[in-house]
Amino acid sequence: MSMLTEPYGVLTNLEIGSMTSPAKKTVVRLRDLRPFLRQRDLIVKNAEADRIIYWYYECSQLTESGQLNFGITTITPGIIGEEYHFTRGHYHTNPNAGEVYLTTKGEGILLTQSTDGKTKEINLRPGSTAYISPGWAHRAVNTGDEDFVYFYSYPANAGHDYSLVEKDGFKKVVVRRKGMPTVIAVK
Amino acid sequence: MSMLTEPYGVLTNLEIGSMTSPAKKTVVRLRDLRPFLRQRDLIVKNAEADRIIYWYYECSQLTESGQLNFGITTITPGIIGEEYHFTRGHYHTNPNAGEVYLTTKGEGILLTQSTDGKTKEINLRPGSTAYISPGWAHRAVNTGDEDFVYFYSYPANAGHDYSLVEKDGFKKVVVRRKGMPTVIAVK
Repeated sequence: MSMLTEPYGVLTNLEIGSMTSPAKKTVVRLRDLRPFLRQRDLIVKNAEADRIIYWYYECSQLTESGQLNFGITTITPGIIGEEYHFTRGHYHTNPNAGEVYLTTKGEGILLTQSTDGKTKEINLRPGSTAYISPGWAHRAVNTGDEDFVYFYSYPANAGHDYSLVEKDGFKKVVVRRKGMPTVIAVK
Repeated sequence: MSMLTEPYGVLTNLEIGSMTSPAKKTVVRLRDLRPFLRQRDLIVKNAEADRIIYWYYECSQLTESGQLNFGITTITPGIIGEEYHFTRGHYHTNPNAGEVYLTTKGEGILLTQSTDGKTKEINLRPGSTAYISPGWAHRAVNTGDEDFVYFYSYPANAGHDYSLVEKDGFKKVVVRRKGMPTVIAVK
């Protein structure tokens, strides 16, 4: 199976957050993020629903053990209600699948949590490399005034489960308090 | 098993090629590279045997399916005989284990080859991202005048087999011809 694919190269822009073909681009707007907001009843005007919160370019391989997907994500700067722009966040469907993040621009916080209730936050700035252990959900938050960009890689057979996060939310979120990014526990 | 480890962060210098603890540093010198040279009978003076060809910092996880190791490699600029400085290169012991390279500084060429005789070269400059499919041996070559630096990630259960490359060499190598890096087939 694995010999079906040959090595290949793409060009990644580490400042803008883009990647040449065969990478595929996905854009996530405020309307897509609504079920993941801490304030689910937040009133979002139609004009704001189109706001781009983040995008990512990803190169996907065959879904088989040992193959790696990789890509680059850009989270725009901004606040929704009191939450800084963030990615929806997910568990991997396959509990035995880690992930690596390498920050290339901006400032952010990586929120992680395990299904048994542990949480851990990791501050990210250019050069910060985070390892997300298998079994931990992960969400990235842009806490700066400019785009926050990171390169990532994970096993191609990981799968993404957004439903647990959509149902229960993240145990901790990043909000602006006195003008500063502050990690708070959600009750 | 996988819940034994928590997410963590390190700081990576993408220009120099270094990584903070718990990353471990390995230095490879000309004497270590000798069995991998095209000209194995090349006379290397003792004073030159200490020359640093490359180093890498690596964060290793538990050796289990779905965990990812990651690190950063710096190949110094230079020539040995007529070959540009290069990494030894290896197959993964586990034939189902790919690898991702992200170039952050300098210029190089990634040489890849499969056990059934195929070869493929990929040019690398800052932002170049290469995917090395499972089953392909890989060697990086610094073809520029400055350090060549790349970030990488691969499955923690990949394993490294240098013996096949030491025995048979790479089918193609990068040599200086008329002052230019040139990929040639080894007879």
